Amino acid sequence: MATFDRRTFLRTATTAVVAGAVTPDLAVKSMENDLAAPAPTPPEVTKILARYIVSARYEDLPAHVRKEGLRTLLNWVGVAVGGSRHETVNIAVEALAPFSGPPQASILGRRERFDAMNAAFINGVSSHIFDYDDTHPKTIIHPAGPVVSAILALAEHRPTDGRNFLNALVLGVETECRIGNAVYPDHYDRGWHITGTAGVFGAAASAGKLLGLSEQQMIWALGLAASQPVGFRESFGSMNKSFNPGRAASNGLFAAFLASKNFTSSDQMIEAKRGWATTISTKHDYKEIIDGLGKHYESTLNTYKAFACGIVMHPAIDAAIQLRDQYSVNAGRVQSVHLRVNPLVLELTGKKTPTTGLEGKFSIYHAVAVAIVEGAAGERQFSDRAVHDPTIVQLRSRVVPVIDTNIQLSQVEMTMVLEDGRQLVKSIQHAKGTLEAPMTDGDIESKFTDLAKESLSPAQIRTLVDLCWNLEKLPSASAIAKAAVPL
Amino acid sequence: MATFDRRTFLRTATTAVVAGAVTPDLAVKSMENDLAAPAPTPPEVTKILARYIVSARYEDLPAHVRKEGLRTLLNWVGVAVGGSRHETVNIAVEALAPFSGPPQASILGRRERFDAMNAAFINGVSSHIFDYDDTHPKTIIHPAGPVVSAILALAEHRPTDGRNFLNALVLGVETECRIGNAVYPDHYDRGWHITGTAGVFGAAASAGKLLGLSEQQMIWALGLAASQPVGFRESFGSMNKSFNPGRAASNGLFAAFLASKNFTSSDQMIEAKRGWATTISTKHDYKEIIDGLGKHYESTLNTYKAFACGIVMHPAIDAAIQLRDQYSVNAGRVQSVHLRVNPLVLELTGKKTPTTGLEGKFSIYHAVAVAIVEGAAGERQFSDRAVHDPTIVQLRSRVVPVIDTNIQLSQVEMTMVLEDGRQLVKSIQHAKGTLEAPMTDGDIESKFTDLAKESLSPAQIRTLVDLCWNLEKLPSASAIAKAAVPL
Repeated sequence: MATFDRRTFLRTATTAVVAGAVTPDLAVKSMENDLAAPAPTPPEVTKILARYIVSARYEDLPAHVRKEGLRTLLNWVGVAVGGSRHETVNIAVEALAPFSGPPQASILGRRERFDAMNAAFINGVSSHIFDYDDTHPKTIIHPAGPVVSAILALAEHRPTDGRNFLNALVLGVETECRIGNAVYPDHYDRGWHITGTAGVFGAAASAGKLLGLSEQQMIWALGLAASQPVGFRESFGSMNKSFNPGRAASNGLFAAFLASKNFTSSDQMIEAKRGWATTISTKHDYKEIIDGLGKHYESTLNTYKAFACGIVMHPAIDAAIQLRDQYSVNAGRVQSVHLRVNPLVLELTGKKTPTTGLEGKFSIYHAVAVAIVEGAAGERQFSDRAVHDPTIVQLRSRVVPVIDTNIQLSQVEMTMVLEDGRQLVKSIQHAKGTLEAPMTDGDIESKFTDLAKESLSPAQIRTLVDLCWNLEKLPSASAIAKAAVPL
Repeated sequence: MATFDRRTFLRTATTAVVAGAVTPDLAVKSMENDLAAPAPTPPEVTKILARYIVSARYEDLPAHVRKEGLRTLLNWVGVAVGGSRHETVNIAVEALAPFSGPPQASILGRRERFDAMNAAFINGVSSHIFDYDDTHPKTIIHPAGPVVSAILALAEHRPTDGRNFLNALVLGVETECRIGNAVYPDHYDRGWHITGTAGVFGAAASAGKLLGLSEQQMIWALGLAASQPVGFRESFGSMNKSFNPGRAASNGLFAAFLASKNFTSSDQMIEAKRGWATTISTKHDYKEIIDGLGKHYESTLNTYKAFACGIVMHPAIDAAIQLRDQYSVNAGRVQSVHLRVNPLVLELTGKKTPTTGLEGKFSIYHAVAVAIVEGAAGERQFSDRAVHDPTIVQLRSRVVPVIDTNIQLSQVEMTMVLEDGRQLVKSIQHAKGTLEAPMTDGDIESKFTDLAKESLSPAQIRTLVDLCWNLEKLPSASAIAKAAVPL
């Protein structure tokens, strides 16, 4: 623990008082507090992180890190295109069109073009609409929303090749997930929507990397990003939830553009006493941010949802689809489906007769039934159409969940009884889409196709998927954004 | 205290888990915490506030409230024009120009025009450059920065008459100061720059009022504003400090524009368990927000700095100018100036030989000397020129502060000894610019002229001052912005 530096404190207090930003009484009280319990001097977190971001090269990325970056990209493009026709996006486009600058960047899945910052916002909103995007399980951050929304829009404005783009993507995800690790779970438990509060750092870092910021400029970009945290958990259930990753993306770009012209900030915004981490969270473990940079990659711990609903139903859906496929089950021949589940499954998703697609996401009965009938549980399986489909409605009444406190939330034990008396059994320890049972590349492609097919033709989808996988060979990463626009 | 509503909790938790936004484990832990210590149900703060904002009419404003609104406006236009030539603003203009939408709004004191949101940001930055703007002493919020920056830019895009503009200004200031009162001082003490965190509500409220939002839309605007708090005290001393009121202004506009098209948010974003106040502050006294709406006006408690430096030096400067003017003191005839000051004055502003204008703001010696020589302590009295002026340098060596623990921070006792042996004595209880000794209308006009004269001609300044005082007669409030552009 460093000794208390009275000079440093006085300099800070003086600046504040002279600026009129704090009353002298408050400064004195604050000084007394500090003298009574001097804080340890934290490491230079902002500086160390900035130095890493500006110096890290594409060539330094291990192959498995590059590969996970491509999977993150492909999954994000899919959910962004998939969400782009939603009412939330229509509203954002209508509201912001009068203020947009030059048509620098595409809105994925649509024909409008906006300036880079507004495009980043809208694409970030689209990508979170279905809560079907990627998840870093250690923090529940959805990493791609803030980062890829920012840099794909930027890449259309300032050309960049695919390798630099992938490097920036990885560095952005590293930045936000590491900062998230430093404050999770306290920060999230308090009420912050961590995708918006940590995400803005990822957006600024990745955009700043593509803008070629110096170390000092990157420090400022992180400082200006820190100054713009976005979102509370109270927003969940409204359009404001999708707003948060979108605004994190545009705020990060805003920070990076200003820093690139030498708009200054503090050099210690993350770790200072009145900076981001101590103000916004009771926990702040800076080792999570600065240890093992360039050696250990949080971005390889990203996951992609296999099913378009809360993860609590994923084990049952996974079991249902596996039995269906393995035994070529005909839904009409299913007499009953028994499943032993953790008690929370019924508490959270116990709705027996959903009447809307959204309600279907809260019904374990519907989820299992639709998975058996359609062999999938994507966004279209949680539509109004699906919850009113007679075959599915009939089958869901035969789904019999039983709670069992010995069953973990990641598990399910399913017994499917067919009309001919056969009993098909499936036990799931970890559902598809978890770190333990990751989505295959093919799974992500299928999810992509399912999400994109209302906006893009099959040929366009094929082209777009190939562009994502082949990012590292692209002379301009902007080709991906352009290919995601309907013909 | 309301009984704990298990159903409400489950609905919230379910939404979160199903959305994949929270792990089931965390939801269970959180539920157990809530069952152990259920929180009282707060009043419907967001709704009550929104209802007030949408229903309050110009005709309801008492005369003294209207008058204080005009003073707030005039002071803000002065500091915004005054700060507009600063390097910070040059950088912001250069960085954002490539992304600006149509030239909807003026940058005060300059010739560029930007879309309303970018203009609001830049004008908000300009107005805080010198830390010379208005202050609500109860919260240390600088009210005009977020609010007037937002609505003046908006008024150029969407015409509004002066009366509606004044009403929106007052309502915006009410909103931010009341929300600030609810969380101050804990929120500020923790590290938030309250002008940016509470200010964004003021910007959204005032802009939403001019956009004619419905009560539901205003609720959403407040929710989207809440989701975008700006700034930490660690930014003080860098350009990031001026960034904060600017970004609060543009974020508030962003929220209001989206809400006007029915982009939804929570109906309880201010008071909900995982909403703004409980997440961002340990103190949250909702009575401060909702009691006496339309009866008691926080906006009448606004103050305007008389001198362009920290308030700790204001009593001494005030005394020096009063003696100078009262006795027509010639600086060359001053043998010494003795002042009894609170100990903090020397701790904070004890620099004896400042070498830059900024250092002059930390020197009680320079402040007293320049006040005697020039009869003022505006921005130009804290310039590099001033701290090197031989007459001032000579006089400052004759300034003798003595600390006295019986002297309050608001006080000073000054004895000026002249070469002829005369001793001039002045005691100050409250310096000019405080609530107890407010700036007169003439004082604010003089300050305005001093700030504007490098950008605008004397005739332009006269026109602009008259437009501000006569706001209520203007068919379009935008005339003020247009008149603040150099010819």
